[in-house]
Amino acid sequence: MRIDQLVTPAVLVDAEALEANLDAMSEALPGSRLRPHVKAHKCTELARLQAARGHTGFTCATLREVEGMAAAGLGADLLLANEVLDARRLGALDARVTLAVDSLPTVDAAAAGGVREVLIDVNVGLPRCGCAPERAGELADHARSRGLEVRGVMGYEGHLMLQADRAVRERGVSESMQRLAAAHTDVGGPVISAGGTGTYALNRVATEIQAGSYALMDTAYAALELPFRPALEILSRVLSVSADYAVADCGLKALGMDHGNPRVEGAAVWFCSDEHLTFAPEASVAVGDWIRVQPAHIDPTLAYHERLHLVSGDQVLESWPIDLRGW
Amino acid sequence: MRIDQLVTPAVLVDAEALEANLDAMSEALPGSRLRPHVKAHKCTELARLQAARGHTGFTCATLREVEGMAAAGLGADLLLANEVLDARRLGALDARVTLAVDSLPTVDAAAAGGVREVLIDVNVGLPRCGCAPERAGELADHARSRGLEVRGVMGYEGHLMLQADRAVRERGVSESMQRLAAAHTDVGGPVISAGGTGTYALNRVATEIQAGSYALMDTAYAALELPFRPALEILSRVLSVSADYAVADCGLKALGMDHGNPRVEGAAVWFCSDEHLTFAPEASVAVGDWIRVQPAHIDPTLAYHERLHLVSGDQVLESWPIDLRGW
Repeated sequence: MRIDQLVTPAVLVDAEALEANLDAMSEALPGSRLRPHVKAHKCTELARLQAARGHTGFTCATLREVEGMAAAGLGADLLLANEVLDARRLGALDARVTLAVDSLPTVDAAAAGGVREVLIDVNVGLPRCGCAPERAGELADHARSRGLEVRGVMGYEGHLMLQADRAVRERGVSESMQRLAAAHTDVGGPVISAGGTGTYALNRVATEIQAGSYALMDTAYAALELPFRPALEILSRVLSVSADYAVADCGLKALGMDHGNPRVEGAAVWFCSDEHLTFAPEASVAVGDWIRVQPAHIDPTLAYHERLHLVSGDQVLESWPIDLRGW
Repeated sequence: MRIDQLVTPAVLVDAEALEANLDAMSEALPGSRLRPHVKAHKCTELARLQAARGHTGFTCATLREVEGMAAAGLGADLLLANEVLDARRLGALDARVTLAVDSLPTVDAAAAGGVREVLIDVNVGLPRCGCAPERAGELADHARSRGLEVRGVMGYEGHLMLQADRAVRERGVSESMQRLAAAHTDVGGPVISAGGTGTYALNRVATEIQAGSYALMDTAYAALELPFRPALEILSRVLSVSADYAVADCGLKALGMDHGNPRVEGAAVWFCSDEHLTFAPEASVAVGDWIRVQPAHIDPTLAYHERLHLVSGDQVLESWPIDLRGW
């Protein structure tokens, strides 16, 4: 099938760029050094490509992601790197599931839900989940007293992920990982899970890196000069042309907007409405033309779409369901 | 069922507020004076409540919305108020479908796809779809030459929808509708379709108003002093509590973010991540507490969710699929 037969807006993933990104990361972090984060793509078929490269442990952000990965036969070692208050859906799975915990209630929820393994989630500088490093040992003790296996610690230095100055980023990662290492001393266990696409090459403490964005690559990472390239665009069609602007069928319900407007090469984007993108093209366009839209943030963009299309040039190679959406 | 049994994040719709909003609009615009826009809720069960109040013609923004409404038995008079370049999915429906057209190619697409009725879409000031008013007559002639029934004109004064000053808004609507009336003189037909929640009471030219937001009401409309009240919140649960902030499970993939951060009563919202909301509550909160999140923009929020829950206090009355999502 050619891309001009797709219903627009349609998610296109460049097969060559995707493979190159996956290969580059696998070379840097072979096997279990990488625990790919599926939240970035929410697609079990894409996860299969990561597993085929030897990364058989995965990171998830939601119960639905864990369930979907288990159902797809990718449940060898799933980390839910997020707190939950009702873990029964995890305990019911035929998969190896490790759950993040950062408080007494979340430890208790893990035990009550039938989860067997946990990581102590430690705050390493990002104001989000994670306990204070000095509390990690106490939580590990409590978890063990509840019969849970404590595999180690995790911490996400997300506040540094898009820091453009490499030296500043590296120093920040070092400080964050000192906090995580200190917590790990109190907790024990073989796992120190951390990191992401922006810091994977700088993190010298983590035993495994939770990177996800590297596969499809957000435009926001461009300033970091990473060995990955953008692999995702939204195919859209020009519906209407006026004197100084045109309108295409890619709007707010097809785009994650928290990082701002999308980009269209050779055009100035004016604004998005629910189902429309109003833009001023440098060269003239006609009704029916196809354009490529680069979303400002891929993760919440994909969560709007039912499927992605793996393409090579104008050919659709495969269409994969984005099957890990929802909760 | 009680709301504390729902999987979070969960869309709650206050049944009483919804009914009051629907009743208030039906009183202002009875029967066919209102053509409710389903893009605002994407839910056929909610559309049934509108149809039950006598509004049996609906406005849609996507092919999927038209198909879903037809499949739900609500296809008595569906207007797709948007241009399409391949209308075959519309022509195949067992429903009365009217399609917006604003150019020769979109007229030709309507005819080729088996659509029988069209409205000429006229630009009345918002830089989006719609032909120049002076071109409307020529397009109507072309449509009739292709065998299409031209029911009239439509135009959306969307640039005025959130204008807080009523006098400015009223003057703007008047100017926009002069453009539409001029086009209508050249086009003919019984229908002049226009308007929205922000202008429904000011539009004296339209024969029918395409309002949608009034049912659930965006916070952005608060300044307009309309007789509708917010009916939608996202139920979310506190996952983690730190010294000066807390984290709940309602993030970027559960919220339309183009109008900015959501609000949480009694708290300052710091930022959203993919699956998290970091906020500073005025009163202390505990892990496991439920909070209510008001999204800044409802339409793209609903497009992330599989279902909404109609509630009265803490009781879930019904759960309805948000079944018109996608394209």
